[in-house]
Amino acid sequence: MEKREFIYEGKAKQIYATDNENLVIIHYKDDATAGNGEKKGTISNKGVINNEITTILFENLEKNGIRTHFKGKLNDRDQLCEKLEIFPLEVIVRNIIAGSMAKRVGIEEGTKPENTIFEICYKNDAFGDPLINDHHAVAMGLATYDELKKIYEITGKINTLLLKAFGDEGIDLVDFKIEFGKNAAGEIVLADEISPDTCRLWDKATGQKLDKDRFRRDLGSIEEAYIEILKRLGAK
Amino acid sequence: MEKREFIYEGKAKQIYATDNENLVIIHYKDDATAGNGEKKGTISNKGVINNEITTILFENLEKNGIRTHFKGKLNDRDQLCEKLEIFPLEVIVRNIIAGSMAKRVGIEEGTKPENTIFEICYKNDAFGDPLINDHHAVAMGLATYDELKKIYEITGKINTLLLKAFGDEGIDLVDFKIEFGKNAAGEIVLADEISPDTCRLWDKATGQKLDKDRFRRDLGSIEEAYIEILKRLGAK
Ligand SMILES: Nc1ncnc2c1ncn2[C@@H]1O[C@H](COP(=O)(O)OP(=O)(O)O)[C@@H](O)[C@H]1O
Ligand SMILES: Nc1ncnc2c1ncn2[C@@H]1O[C@H](COP(=O)(O)OP(=O)(O)O)[C@@H](O)[C@H]1O
Ligand SMILES: [Mg+2]
Ligand SMILES: [Mg+2]
Repeated sequence: MEKREFIYEGKAKQIYATDNENLVIIHYKDDATAGNGEKKGTISNKGVINNEITTILFENLEKNGIRTHFKGKLNDRDQLCEKLEIFPLEVIVRNIIAGSMAKRVGIEEGTKPENTIFEICYKNDAFGDPLINDHHAVAMGLATYDELKKIYEITGKINTLLLKAFGDEGIDLVDFKIEFGKNAAGEIVLADEISPDTCRLWDKATGQKLDKDRFRRDLGSIEEAYIEILKRLGAK
Repeated sequence: MEKREFIYEGKAKQIYATDNENLVIIHYKDDATAGNGEKKGTISNKGVINNEITTILFENLEKNGIRTHFKGKLNDRDQLCEKLEIFPLEVIVRNIIAGSMAKRVGIEEGTKPENTIFEICYKNDAFGDPLINDHHAVAMGLATYDELKKIYEITGKINTLLLKAFGDEGIDLVDFKIEFGKNAAGEIVLADEISPDTCRLWDKATGQKLDKDRFRRDLGSIEEAYIEILKRLGAK
């Protein structure tokens, strides 16, 4: 697979064309941002670690019937993926309340709700990725009611699989954010990454945060936390 | 019906007990607030006008099969209503995009979506009545999924009826906010008020705003706008 021209980049990854118009190469950077880009930095080797973690998790999901964009790991920082038209939505699942939801409604971090909480945010940095609901998404033409229904269905299955993948390694999956896209055939496919950048992961035994909150909240030992997640997931 | 002790008050109304434990008297004040209480003032005769407008609209809704708390207008500022346990939710309907939604996602005010937009906000001044979704409401114990389903169902019917009530008088119902409560029998009942305080109402012919945005945005002729709405609804 030949890496061709740079297409675009976000805060954590770059997207390159390939010689197949339905495939892209996704390059994982060490750049880290928080608070909608207010805080900027790098986490050493983050790109390498997250490429590896996402590979493990997307292969696990594929094996369990989830359609993902992942085609193969090419090297330390590059993945071959299906090219998708991304829904401009952040799809969020919360098993334990933390972060923006805790703040928004005044609930203590760590509270465990009886239901699973699904959220969508409008993926738009200029507006701070605001929380929206299905009616907003449809009104804005971001997705149809039908597409959203499918997205929630797939997301529920992904949550079950990830709860097990992390749970088996002594990690609480507090919350996570995923993205979906449509491929050339019109199928809805899991895109982007699943990593300590996009999940809250708490060690079950100690409660220690093993995710990007260490960066957001200046808790130190960031790279170590990411490596710990990789070690646990990789130790099969 | 005897007016007994003061129970509590909000920004626009006071609630009094009566000699029947299932009934309250709701007293309409002239107080007006905006931006979550940041801007404060009074609108002359607002209480009298909104009591009358709410009476007309709630009688219309009752006649058309909507269960409301309204039992009767007692005088200029007082209504007799069923006492309810209010769901701490603001239920919002948007037929045209304006206000907080326009700002939140960067859509021009006046844009007409193809779908009807329903929203719920957590009714809590300390947190600025934040937008939430059904999963948040259930997690917080504000309502069950089943109750929310019923609330949306009733709200859709109310929207249809209000669109006609205002539309017949040359007024665009842009958006509105309602509240629901449960009565002693556990039924879900429409509560609170429907008035220019809680609706955006635009004159179809001129586009003129005939609602609380005149107060929020310092457009003047506030009382006149409220009277205009009453005149149109009352002129049957
Ligand atoms: N399979 C894919 N096809 C096309 N674009 C993708 C795919 N997977 C992810 N993307 C997009 O790649 C971009 C870069 O990722 P990232 O750096 O994480 O961006 P962001 O700053 O938006 O978080 C994002 O806009 C993301 O939606
Ligand atoms: N039928 C009812 N029974 C009990 N409380 C009610 C009923 N209808 C409305 N209320 C409540 O009366 C309070 C006063 O109203 P208002 O002044 O508009 O309050 P707010 O400042 O919350 O807008 C609100 O908390 C509202 O939810
Ligand atoms: Mg990203
Ligand atoms: Mg009110």
